[in-house]
Amino acid sequence: MEIGNLNLELNHAIKSKDIEKINSIFETFPTIDIAEIVDDLKDITDVVYIFRVVKSSYTAELFKDLSSTKQEELINSFLDKDIVKVLSSAFADDVTDYLSEMPANLVSRILKVAPKDMREDINHLLNYKDNTAGSIMTTEFLLFDENETIKSTISKIKEKGKQAVTIYTIFIRDSLRNLVGTVDLDELLFNDTTKPLKEIMNKKFQTVDVNLDQEEVAKLFKRYDLTAMAVLNSDKKICGIITADDIFDVITEEAAEDISNISNVSKIDKPYLETPIMKLVLKCAPWIVVLMILQVFSSMILSSFQSEINKFAILSVFSPMILDASGNSGGQTTGLMIRSLGLDEIHRGDWKKVALKEFLVGTIVGLIVSVFAFGWAMLEMSTGLVSCHIEDYPAIQGVSNDTILHLVVAGLVGITLLISIVLSKLFGVGLSFIAYKLKKDPAVMAQPLVTTLVDISSLLIYFGVWMLFFEYFLGI
Amino acid sequence: MEIGNLNLELNHAIKSKDIEKINSIFETFPTIDIAEIVDDLKDITDVVYIFRVVKSSYTAELFKDLSSTKQEELINSFLDKDIVKVLSSAFADDVTDYLSEMPANLVSRILKVAPKDMREDINHLLNYKDNTAGSIMTTEFLLFDENETIKSTISKIKEKGKQAVTIYTIFIRDSLRNLVGTVDLDELLFNDTTKPLKEIMNKKFQTVDVNLDQEEVAKLFKRYDLTAMAVLNSDKKICGIITADDIFDVITEEAAEDISNISNVSKIDKPYLETPIMKLVLKCAPWIVVLMILQVFSSMILSSFQSEINKFAILSVFSPMILDASGNSGGQTTGLMIRSLGLDEIHRGDWKKVALKEFLVGTIVGLIVSVFAFGWAMLEMSTGLVSCHIEDYPAIQGVSNDTILHLVVAGLVGITLLISIVLSKLFGVGLSFIAYKLKKDPAVMAQPLVTTLVDISSLLIYFGVWMLFFEYFLGI
Repeated sequence: MEIGNLNLELNHAIKSKDIEKINSIFETFPTIDIAEIVDDLKDITDVVYIFRVVKSSYTAELFKDLSSTKQEELINSFLDKDIVKVLSSAFADDVTDYLSEMPANLVSRILKVAPKDMREDINHLLNYKDNTAGSIMTTEFLLFDENETIKSTISKIKEKGKQAVTIYTIFIRDSLRNLVGTVDLDELLFNDTTKPLKEIMNKKFQTVDVNLDQEEVAKLFKRYDLTAMAVLNSDKKICGIITADDIFDVITEEAAEDISNISNVSKIDKPYLETPIMKLVLKCAPWIVVLMILQVFSSMILSSFQSEINKFAILSVFSPMILDASGNSGGQTTGLMIRSLGLDEIHRGDWKKVALKEFLVGTIVGLIVSVFAFGWAMLEMSTGLVSCHIEDYPAIQGVSNDTILHLVVAGLVGITLLISIVLSKLFGVGLSFIAYKLKKDPAVMAQPLVTTLVDISSLLIYFGVWMLFFEYFLGI
Repeated sequence: MEIGNLNLELNHAIKSKDIEKINSIFETFPTIDIAEIVDDLKDITDVVYIFRVVKSSYTAELFKDLSSTKQEELINSFLDKDIVKVLSSAFADDVTDYLSEMPANLVSRILKVAPKDMREDINHLLNYKDNTAGSIMTTEFLLFDENETIKSTISKIKEKGKQAVTIYTIFIRDSLRNLVGTVDLDELLFNDTTKPLKEIMNKKFQTVDVNLDQEEVAKLFKRYDLTAMAVLNSDKKICGIITADDIFDVITEEAAEDISNISNVSKIDKPYLETPIMKLVLKCAPWIVVLMILQVFSSMILSSFQSEINKFAILSVFSPMILDASGNSGGQTTGLMIRSLGLDEIHRGDWKKVALKEFLVGTIVGLIVSVFAFGWAMLEMSTGLVSCHIEDYPAIQGVSNDTILHLVVAGLVGITLLISIVLSKLFGVGLSFIAYKLKKDPAVMAQPLVTTLVDISSLLIYFGVWMLFFEYFLGI
């Protein structure tokens, strides 16, 4: 059966109530692929039917993979026994995940029918703060005494079976219940089965505190190439484990958050198409307003130079180019900082090194860009793309001509850009490191402030140099 | 021994040539932590000393974890036998990774002394295109015949030992050498050891083509929660495997690339502090110049309205606010698109749904922002933060007064913002989907074009509405 036909096959099997066929589809295809098709089924009774005729090991996973809308619809259509069936093969951390998205009445209905030990696990997990190690860990893991022999360990693992989410790494404790080591499953195969675990265990293992931020957990996973890691509570006892697949989600989530932040969108929890319109409005509109308020400074500067602009309208033609180029340049530095701080490539103590490096980069970029901008502005004015003629400016008709005016304006653009680009890089470094030190996300805090500072400084330099030249040198 | 003292302890052990101590440090601490300290050792002979006295299983990993600068320095200081020692315990894919960063003369020196079979593996891996499944896979894996019994499989695994990078999943082939299944190590423990592998193997496994983009590979890993996956060559035979830790790197790299792209910085391969200044300049400067060239359109528009600006300088005070707010709004939509396309939340066929949604979001955001901007502009003008007085504009002194002028200007700002924000969202959706369809990264292609289009449309609306009002209604 090809994956392309999965949709047709499943719909047909449901319509003809072919229980055998439906079960064989679940045996052949990954549940996540089936979940996407079930999400699109219009008739909820068809979905309930699937949950009744398919093995609970499959339906527990299917439920987890459905969209939250479909999950809620299902709970409303389920009898209590259907809920019990789904929960019977589910993992507590998965159930906690979907419960945390559901309305309170559905949560309490599920908790009411959940088996006692799972209810305890769920209540426990629900208590951990979002985005901590506790919120992503699972409470199902294998913990053995260090004096246990390999042989008895293997037979105990066989008894427990697939209940422990990741069985590749087992955790070892001493008589005081402290975690003292880990054993990878292959070590059980490689060694004499009469040895106690403490002789083969790895003592170089990593642990995290249950309250550690999940982003820090992900960094440890990447740094040490881990597949599973123990989570310790405040008594330094193991209370859960985190596995590699949890970390995929964390890294992806954090990356998505960085992108949202850089784009000035507040954090989004649900997939785009499932996020209601008013939620999107609330994620977007406040930022635009905040950035607009920050802009009051540039408006004030522009306003105070209004008489200059009235006399020389050409100034306002090139100001967006200057603001954009310096803003882009500051954005590049902030982007580099967000990237390198996120990858753990630079640390707090590196700020001097980084500032010096960006100063040099800014100077060279500034020189290149300002030479280009000078030429580009000359080209625009001399070809008439941008009209700039001496007769429009009676104040300087006596002392200048078209060519000189073009050279002065283009020169002003070039000089302003050189200084602004260097400053924009320094603002980018400075504000990113300040945000980092204050434990704020540079993408949230530094990005808008850099733009504001760059706008202010560029405008001041632009009009400042202009006035210096015209008013003081030429006395106009 | 605490990790804080690691630096002191290691330096002391090196100075006193305490071989036992140095080895015990490697047994106690993760190699990556030691590598950071070794990176900072000034005297390269100290580093060479470590490589000579420590077990090769540790030094192979240490070498891989050092900075590329240190690696090159070491190869230059190593005798041939030192290189052989490092390679003896290394994995071909790790060696390939660092070779691809080294100058050609060092690469050829390493390849000359490498054992023949490793040299073949490396040459093979070096031939895969960057960022494909082939470039991140490892060629060491366990492949067994489907008729092999569990018992004989276990004894063969014991013989091969730790050579196979990930031993958690073993791969099963039929008599034609086609991949037909996978077996997780715990299945070997759970089953009757006389059974052949084909009876316990999982047939619902995922594979990828060796030329598939690594980002697509990472998506499959996340979607199916995998720990290892087979890579097939053009004959559909297994030629390597990819493991979860490779995927951490891919996800992190791709996320870093997205951030760089959104910030208009070209792709950076090395850590920030190791990237030479001129490389950073080349990553930054061209983008600023390209964006400046794209800006020619806004300059042309501004220039063609110069006589309006000459008459009404107040127009130029509010134009940056309009350009910024609409640009930010377009950036939000592009950010959302980049995020959702990257997370696989939206697909090509969703463009109509997404465009409608963003149109509605844009309309509501636009209304909120324009009402706020109207009030804000009124406040700025009435408090004198921005000066706007009827006596500065002789052309309209007869038909208006300060209050009416303020209302007209603030109204113009509001109307322009409403239309621009809606358009900016539609440009964001349109260009992101076009980039996606052309298989270009929306962050590289869509972002700058959205800004350009938004600038052009906002200016045209701003001046267009102004002229419509003044020139046609009032006939001024």
